[in-house]
Amino acid sequence: MTQGMNNLLGLREMSPESIVEVLDTARSFREVLERPIKKVPTLQGTTVVNLFFESSTRTRISFELAERRLSADVVSFAASGSSVSKGETLKDTARNIEAMKTDVVVIRHSSTGAPHFLSRLLKSPVINAGDGINEHPTQGLLDMYTMREKFGELKGLNVCIVGDIVHSRVARSNIFGLTKLGANVAVCGPKTLIPDYLDQFGVKTFFDIDEAIGWADVLNVLRIQLEREAGGNFPSIREYRLYWGINIHRLERAKRPLVIMHPGPINRGVELDADVADGNTSLILDQVTNGVAVRMAVLFLTGAKSS
Amino acid sequence: MTQGMNNLLGLREMSPESIVEVLDTARSFREVLERPIKKVPTLQGTTVVNLFFESSTRTRISFELAERRLSADVVSFAASGSSVSKGETLKDTARNIEAMKTDVVVIRHSSTGAPHFLSRLLKSPVINAGDGINEHPTQGLLDMYTMREKFGELKGLNVCIVGDIVHSRVARSNIFGLTKLGANVAVCGPKTLIPDYLDQFGVKTFFDIDEAIGWADVLNVLRIQLEREAGGNFPSIREYRLYWGINIHRLERAKRPLVIMHPGPINRGVELDADVADGNTSLILDQVTNGVAVRMAVLFLTGAKSS
Amino acid sequence: MTQGMNNLLGLREMSPESIVEVLDTARSFREVLERPIKKVPTLQGTTVVNLFFESSTRTRISFELAERRLSADVVSFAASGSSVSKGETLKDTARNIEAMKTDVVVIRHSSTGAPHFLSRLLKSPVINAGDGINEHPTQGLLDMYTMREKFGELKGLNVCIVGDIVHSRVARSNIFGLTKLGANVAVCGPKTLIPDYLDQFGVKTFFDIDEAIGWADVLNVLRIQLEREAGGNFPSIREYRLYWGINIHRLERAKRPLVIMHPGPINRGVELDADVADGNTSLILDQVTNGVAVRMAVLFLTGAKSS
Repeated sequence: MTQGMNNLLGLREMSPESIVEVLDTARSFREVLERPIKKVPTLQGTTVVNLFFESSTRTRISFELAERRLSADVVSFAASGSSVSKGETLKDTARNIEAMKTDVVVIRHSSTGAPHFLSRLLKSPVINAGDGINEHPTQGLLDMYTMREKFGELKGLNVCIVGDIVHSRVARSNIFGLTKLGANVAVCGPKTLIPDYLDQFGVKTFFDIDEAIGWADVLNVLRIQLEREAGGNFPSIREYRLYWGINIHRLERAKRPLVIMHPGPINRGVELDADVADGNTSLILDQVTNGVAVRMAVLFLTGAKSS
Repeated sequence: MTQGMNNLLGLREMSPESIVEVLDTARSFREVLERPIKKVPTLQGTTVVNLFFESSTRTRISFELAERRLSADVVSFAASGSSVSKGETLKDTARNIEAMKTDVVVIRHSSTGAPHFLSRLLKSPVINAGDGINEHPTQGLLDMYTMREKFGELKGLNVCIVGDIVHSRVARSNIFGLTKLGANVAVCGPKTLIPDYLDQFGVKTFFDIDEAIGWADVLNVLRIQLEREAGGNFPSIREYRLYWGINIHRLERAKRPLVIMHPGPINRGVELDADVADGNTSLILDQVTNGVAVRMAVLFLTGAKSS
Repeated sequence: MTQGMNNLLGLREMSPESIVEVLDTARSFREVLERPIKKVPTLQGTTVVNLFFESSTRTRISFELAERRLSADVVSFAASGSSVSKGETLKDTARNIEAMKTDVVVIRHSSTGAPHFLSRLLKSPVINAGDGINEHPTQGLLDMYTMREKFGELKGLNVCIVGDIVHSRVARSNIFGLTKLGANVAVCGPKTLIPDYLDQFGVKTFFDIDEAIGWADVLNVLRIQLEREAGGNFPSIREYRLYWGINIHRLERAKRPLVIMHPGPINRGVELDADVADGNTSLILDQVTNGVAVRMAVLFLTGAKSS
């Protein structure tokens, strides 16, 4: 029997046991996705509201698919053209939506802590689909699911996250989750993009990508936000690619075939070369598939608790 | 047995009996919303089209939830990026959508009379979700439902609508509906925002908010449209708040606890203080919940008629 | 037993037998649309993704209705605010969406050949909902369905397409499809808007609208894209109307009542006068209704193949 969860706010707050429960539950939903009819009646009659205050295609579609495949009713809401632009507070928006007797709230917001704030106001479970530069817990869980599927267990696995760590909620959720289940986590990137609080989580830092490649079993390569980096965190895209871009030549120096992951969307030829992204050690498309299963698990565990 | 309705264009056009029929029907849907499975098969196989030519979050979500909980198929349409911007007439848009064999049309439009125009063209029932500064009949009905639930009946109830009356379709729908069921209706606000046609409907006017508070059982406080009021209908937001804003001190002067309502979204600290909006005589969140039930009733009564 | 289709990319690529199969299959779905419950369980548990990289109301709504009436799960995606604006390639977007285990992809794109490109990458069937100035095959099929319903068969029928032929994917799909089933096809419009490759398809050209009217059984009148024509393909809207606009006086010179079609949205009073568009030989609203049935047929034939 499952215990269920009240909310999914971040992996930082979760116990190792709860993380394992999500990953185990996701496995059975992953099987559903291989059936001709990929739909189960689990959340029939339940209403899930997607509050996307920050634009997103793949995360929103992944959640919507997960919701529909659990037979939930789905109401989606994008920030533009909404009451938010009429100056309504997040609190009022949320309480109004809950007053419509919805069951689960999925929220993506540019402010760190918005889902935590909501969860204190609402009786409904709240699922964090990305908040500011804090966490993107379902991404962290799907990354962990994908590594666990590949390697059997996470304990002792060497995972290096490459790129702009300081602005990445994906990096943070990976760090919190992976260290809890016993993986060894490192980060690698330009000094300007590595935060200084990582020691306390037992995270190793590499400033040389070739050293990182020598150490790692998995490279989780982050997207360089081209818009943001114009700000001057490194001299140029060309230079970033030269020093940190993952290409086939660099990987040949590794002792064993490295597993490549990326949360997408990829800047091909910047942080990751096309032949690596599409190569046979890339798990990038598995991540996408597993994302639907992991989100089904999270919706099931929170939705079951609520009803 | 219900009689059903051909359309819901406005409360001005409705008989008292039809209004009561909606309110009575809504009561059974209100009960559905308290069940674990908040869904009934009433409109299965029926297609409802939401034509929102004016942006809206809460009204659209409320209608969509009502439609899904009746098991209707839902197609939504927002004005931006649509054929409308290609210069198509409302008539052509509507007839095209009807030619796709849809069953019920919900329309929100910035032009007064757009739903009435449509209803003459279409065989499908038309539901007005707000037209210009004319009416917002489902808001009027949900306000009436909420007062009736609180007080048992509307006859003899003293309801004062506060704020920008002249531009408010909510005010108009309240006035038409409440007077038909025997409530005493007053308005209160700055002289520039009170229309001069109210006498003919037997509506009282207060220019002093404290007098209004002394008279009323219910204050239905309207949103001040900050954008619009920049135009100069009153000197400043600060002054509006000072003279017309509802706060706890003002309410203490009332003889009995006043019921507070607001159609949302609230400008907290302008027309309504936070402690009043969240206080124990506020029915604001009940209005939101009841809105779904009332819209289910209207969809049921018009949809049943059509099939 | 149906054979099914792998994709619907264009009528140019289709055999006459496949075209007839779609039209015959559409007939049974057309009957479904006359039932009180317009829904069949055919694609239950199947997920259809609508990728609309080009804005569209009527085509998108028609597809969504077709999908819902086949009981498919529907995920829609519009270009604005999507990963596309983050510079993701079409290939990555498509492969990611397929990795979410979707079953059928409907794509509308401003680039000619985008659906063909996708179909080479994806295992899922791809349906072209309009690509650049190449084809709009479901529009072509619904036009053919509508003519066949009216006249019994297409063989020997004289169809004249009027307007901006050179930029029209509707014209191209009509030409490819109609000629394959033995209709005689002509085009008529200003010289600047008639392409020079038409001879090879056996298409006749008229530069005089009255001659075209004397020859045709059907006029398929195209929309003048007012935005584009400002570019100078003809002197003015007024002049276009004078020389090419279809009005009642012009039609009276025809030997027999001409059937009028238009893919919509109509510029009333430009390419087509209101009394002709709404007259009793106009099949314009039939086209809209038949469009849903034809799209149901295409989704069924491709979706059945895929599962």
